[in-house]
Amino acid sequence: MSSTSISPLAPKTAPSLPEIAGVRLATAQAGIRYQGRTDVLFVGLDAGTQVAGVFTRSRCPSAPVDWCRAALQTGVGARALVVNSGNANAFTGLKGRDAVTLTAEIAGRAAGCTPDAVMIASTGVIGEPLDATKFDGVLADCVARAEPGAQAWEQAAKAIMTTDTFPKLATRSAEIAGKTVTINGIAKGAGMIAPDMATMLSFVFTDATLPQTVLQELLSAGTKTSFNCVTVDGDTSTSDTLLLFATGAAGNASIDRADDPRLDGFRAALDDLLIELAQFVARDGEGARKLVTVRVEGAESDASAHRIALSIANSPLVKTAVAGEDANWGRVVMAVGKAGEPADRDRLAIWFGDVRVAVQGARDPGYSEEAASAVMREPEITVRVDLGLGQGAARVWTCDLTKAYVEINGDYRS
Amino acid sequence: MSSTSISPLAPKTAPSLPEIAGVRLATAQAGIRYQGRTDVLFVGLDAGTQVAGVFTRSRCPSAPVDWCRAALQTGVGARALVVNSGNANAFTGLKGRDAVTLTAEIAGRAAGCTPDAVMIASTGVIGEPLDATKFDGVLADCVARAEPGAQAWEQAAKAIMTTDTFPKLATRSAEIAGKTVTINGIAKGAGMIAPDMATMLSFVFTDATLPQTVLQELLSAGTKTSFNCVTVDGDTSTSDTLLLFATGAAGNASIDRADDPRLDGFRAALDDLLIELAQFVARDGEGARKLVTVRVEGAESDASAHRIALSIANSPLVKTAVAGEDANWGRVVMAVGKAGEPADRDRLAIWFGDVRVAVQGARDPGYSEEAASAVMREPEITVRVDLGLGQGAARVWTCDLTKAYVEINGDYRS
Repeated sequence: MSSTSISPLAPKTAPSLPEIAGVRLATAQAGIRYQGRTDVLFVGLDAGTQVAGVFTRSRCPSAPVDWCRAALQTGVGARALVVNSGNANAFTGLKGRDAVTLTAEIAGRAAGCTPDAVMIASTGVIGEPLDATKFDGVLADCVARAEPGAQAWEQAAKAIMTTDTFPKLATRSAEIAGKTVTINGIAKGAGMIAPDMATMLSFVFTDATLPQTVLQELLSAGTKTSFNCVTVDGDTSTSDTLLLFATGAAGNASIDRADDPRLDGFRAALDDLLIELAQFVARDGEGARKLVTVRVEGAESDASAHRIALSIANSPLVKTAVAGEDANWGRVVMAVGKAGEPADRDRLAIWFGDVRVAVQGARDPGYSEEAASAVMREPEITVRVDLGLGQGAARVWTCDLTKAYVEINGDYRS
Repeated sequence: MSSTSISPLAPKTAPSLPEIAGVRLATAQAGIRYQGRTDVLFVGLDAGTQVAGVFTRSRCPSAPVDWCRAALQTGVGARALVVNSGNANAFTGLKGRDAVTLTAEIAGRAAGCTPDAVMIASTGVIGEPLDATKFDGVLADCVARAEPGAQAWEQAAKAIMTTDTFPKLATRSAEIAGKTVTINGIAKGAGMIAPDMATMLSFVFTDATLPQTVLQELLSAGTKTSFNCVTVDGDTSTSDTLLLFATGAAGNASIDRADDPRLDGFRAALDDLLIELAQFVARDGEGARKLVTVRVEGAESDASAHRIALSIANSPLVKTAVAGEDANWGRVVMAVGKAGEPADRDRLAIWFGDVRVAVQGARDPGYSEEAASAVMREPEITVRVDLGLGQGAARVWTCDLTKAYVEINGDYRS
């Protein structure tokens, strides 16, 4: 990890997270891979906590992802979350399954719950066996030390970092049927998506009283406009995990349907928090110097717009042009063309920031290289494309592709 | 273009191409964009020359691609080919269509043929109007100067270069029904696939007597195992063009079906030549220091194997690991997983060169970091994956992703 300076796109200040009744956090040094820093996060959850999850679409998921998927099926809820950095426990075969089972047993003994009430996530190097006996003792100690305060949240966000250059925390509040509820979230990720160093993990907690089915529906919907809209390198992790825990301590009236209007405020707050966390991942993209928002409008459908936006956001040529502060809209045309989605060259219009650079299949007659270049020198850039075909729209976030990305990823493992 | 040194992966010597009866070549400086170098290639073809073509799948193709597609539909054959570098005439709207029409008229007058017997290809910056009047005079002069010799072929390969660091030429011979025929090919491309600088163009010529339908079938089939198996950055050009011309001067017996066994030798020679040219493109990948051959076996189908191979070959994390000489097989697992194709983690085996690094869903018990690292230090590396599911296989070529790629593409246009 050769990148040690904080991303220039990091938020100026990290928020101080409020307590969430029923959630206590502790971190520890288990010496899994890193020396001289925390590498384990333990979260204790009160009885009755419900949990929902969204995971990587990889066909080769990690052992912890397999474990969480199975645990969610039981419906017993969650009493503990164990996260480690430094080793992803991915592609570790039967040993990997044994390691998560042992981790859950150790955590269950420490927290006084059954193993299937323990959620597990791991991030770090792939293919190395994870020695779960290192959690023995460490987790019991965490249970004793766990705290609900702002400092514990900040330490939690730090313990799960790998190539991240800043901890990622966000908080929101909302009302459900007259009761105020709080949502806290932490995340890690720098190549959104990269075994070995920067797999995306995010954990969100609320004191709202909500059943698992409602949580799952809200989380799946919220993921679509947040984490599924951020890309650093287009590489999909074996370990991506997003979990939403609800302790129920707020004591709001129980609501059984995600589309109940009484959840409108909560849904909006959750979506907003997920978007903030997802943006942090793009802001901390490995080697990133520019945050790029890609907006696609006028597509035949939202899904089509989303695929075109990702084609632009994942294009090495678009991303290197942004790194070079080059208003190279020809590469945006290329990326639209390669998406394979309906597009009519002669209806296409493209903007960098507020500067329209192309319209009706050709360079804008009023194109100003100077104005476009001024946009490219900003740290945050919006690329907007109007396809002129329909009403489909999408928005994704990415970062530029710099020499530092190559350096970080050429050096990481060795 | 900041990269001026020749790729370390370039062939030690360029072949000297034999004459092909009915083909004469000339190059010129039209001053389209570059100064002090040739930027126009004219190829004169004898009456009766048949032509077939394969083009970019981009939904936003360039004006010359539209032109060639329409010209092939007429079935009149080809009497001339005009190629320019420096300007791709892509995303140039109505002006772009007018420019190719004017180019064909000028070339047709010079070569004594109708405009629809003129094939056209352009490579270079996108979005800039191409001033076709620059071809006036230049092409008539080319017709007068055109020659069939080895030097003319070499000059032709040089005139179509953009960010290429070496000219790309190949030749083969074969027998058709007792007659010896020759096949010559030239290509350009360095980001396989990138408007603005490195769009892939290739032109292949033979003296064989073959009808357009047979040529088209042979070319389409040959493309599948050659140019469609090479990727530098996964970005699809607006301008990719591969044309196969057959002058008929060899006078072999006419053959009406591509699957006629008398064409077996020709087919093999053509496929081989296309593979050599395609490999040249990967060898000249922008910033490349390593040639990577990705072999996928044991997939459920060849198509599935091909998609997995491309997922590996296009992964920025795999490519930066290769650049860093890091035997990071975890990233290969990641790329298999993200391809979305059938894969069973616990059956997967991975090799770097002859060193098996992973087997049955975990690190190879006999894994030697030293042996794997020695493979990674070689200039040419084979990554092999066995999925253990079926008989599907595929092979693709790519190169590493280096800081030089970022430098070249951050600086190109400005």
